[in-house]
Amino acid sequence: MNEVTGEFDMIARLFAPLTDGRPGTFDLRNDAATFVASPGHETVITLDTLCEGIHFFGDDDPAGVARKLLRVNLSDLAAMGARPFGYLLSLARGKSQDDPWLEAFAAGLKEDQKLFGVTLLGGDTTRTEKGLVLSLTALGEVPMGKALPRSGAQPGDSVVVSGTLGDAALGLCILQGKNFGLDAANRAHLVDRYHLPQPRLQLGHRLVGVAHACLDVSDGLLGDLEHIAQASEVTIQLDASALPLSAAARSVLNADAQLLSNVVGGGDDYELVFTVPASARPELARIEGESGIPLTVIGDVLPGPARVEVLDSERQVLQFERRGWTHF
Amino acid sequence: MNEVTGEFDMIARLFAPLTDGRPGTFDLRNDAATFVASPGHETVITLDTLCEGIHFFGDDDPAGVARKLLRVNLSDLAAMGARPFGYLLSLARGKSQDDPWLEAFAAGLKEDQKLFGVTLLGGDTTRTEKGLVLSLTALGEVPMGKALPRSGAQPGDSVVVSGTLGDAALGLCILQGKNFGLDAANRAHLVDRYHLPQPRLQLGHRLVGVAHACLDVSDGLLGDLEHIAQASEVTIQLDASALPLSAAARSVLNADAQLLSNVVGGGDDYELVFTVPASARPELARIEGESGIPLTVIGDVLPGPARVEVLDSERQVLQFERRGWTHF
Repeated sequence: MNEVTGEFDMIARLFAPLTDGRPGTFDLRNDAATFVASPGHETVITLDTLCEGIHFFGDDDPAGVARKLLRVNLSDLAAMGARPFGYLLSLARGKSQDDPWLEAFAAGLKEDQKLFGVTLLGGDTTRTEKGLVLSLTALGEVPMGKALPRSGAQPGDSVVVSGTLGDAALGLCILQGKNFGLDAANRAHLVDRYHLPQPRLQLGHRLVGVAHACLDVSDGLLGDLEHIAQASEVTIQLDASALPLSAAARSVLNADAQLLSNVVGGGDDYELVFTVPASARPELARIEGESGIPLTVIGDVLPGPARVEVLDSERQVLQFERRGWTHF
Repeated sequence: MNEVTGEFDMIARLFAPLTDGRPGTFDLRNDAATFVASPGHETVITLDTLCEGIHFFGDDDPAGVARKLLRVNLSDLAAMGARPFGYLLSLARGKSQDDPWLEAFAAGLKEDQKLFGVTLLGGDTTRTEKGLVLSLTALGEVPMGKALPRSGAQPGDSVVVSGTLGDAALGLCILQGKNFGLDAANRAHLVDRYHLPQPRLQLGHRLVGVAHACLDVSDGLLGDLEHIAQASEVTIQLDASALPLSAAARSVLNADAQLLSNVVGGGDDYELVFTVPASARPELARIEGESGIPLTVIGDVLPGPARVEVLDSERQVLQFERRGWTHF
């Protein structure tokens, strides 16, 4: 791990223990870390950056920020069908991140490391002019050549999604002041879904050799599915009435059907959406039974131009203004 | 590569070409990248972060910032004896980085990619509240178990450094307004050394199986060597008169001997400093001849407490206030 003089103690105290003594991490005292892939496997690597004031707020719970940072990266590995094993951290501190903040942040990492079986391999700490900037590089592995692509969707495939959609986007609305007439428990459910993604790692791993194409819903269902449509050169047709909703989201949409745009366009759900051939349906039922994660068929892959459509109950194409999340 | 909607075009135009079509990078259109290590090799990974206003200035040449970012990371791989092959980039833009800035930045990466034989594998683009924050994760490989450690220095070893020391620190002084009575060519030499490190990759690779311990001089010679002293539990004794200086630095020190503190304490030289047993001296001479990089014995490894000392010509221990670079 690289570091600035004066932060050695902080790194030794807070971050070196997060290596769990893994060989090749050298207690974060080396210039770099080393690792060896399992025989017959390739390494999968991804990087996500979260910025204060953009992706989270300075007064958010530091442990929660740490866990979200790790989980959004693990979700990318899940989308590839990879098993995670480690990560590197870039922590560029703003003025608000004092020692107690860092302690809570490291505690959040420690908690999730145990949960997901990963260890810290290295990183860098520094300072910014303003605002915390966190970047995490996550590493996993997958049997050689078996990483789930975005380009494999074929006409005749079904489109399947895990869990429920739209919760995180509605949770963000609540954080921004909306109430939706929900009780406290339902509001908390939606806000939790925004704050603490559940990377679908076991599901992703089980989909290796089963799904034709896969990704995680991070920017919004329609925008994300467009990546599969484009990479696979297919049309994807979704059935609006099939989109799986939590009880809280169902209640919100019953009151205001327009909010369906949050379900198809809102990001941060971190569910997996994937396509499978009809022949894989029995296997899918087994996976659903074993994992306990609801899997819902929400549409079909068709021959045609690269496009994603959402049909209503009369099979009319719905129009949405918001197809994905943007900073601009 | 992850990205925000609205930056797809920028990524496709500027960054996707930097993958050189490498398999496993999926034109930056996937959630993650994949790679396979060469047989008998382990992967070496490192991460360094550079922040506007801390490590560089907003009006610095964008291509130069890109090249420095890549090179400081490659220097960490060199210190491990690794051959680099790829990298991931986190680009968190401030307000000053417009499209022409990004184009020049990408051009700088492209130039150095060719020079060092690496390709972009993935990354993330986002926005900060203020100031550009760049983080780069560099990947290389080294024969299994052969990475150069910091912990292998043994009493009887010589301490050797590549190139010259102190240039970058003196170059920074010039950028901050010092003149040192140097002519333009000498001033330019020192400033270039600050702006554009030369990662000693071929040297590092040749030191595998030869050096007992190695690192790159990034924070300052004494502070960095303390890492070897501590990890190896040895005393390191340096001979002040042996420290290799460029003609420009020699001229500066002749005028003001106090500036020796910049040579032993200043960072950013990115030379390799390593320890070798006496038996390796003939091999070292061969490496020097083949590489064309001057290698200078600057001291000895002794039994004793973990400590780094600098002796003057009368073998008295010199005292320096500045032992390494700090943000605080």
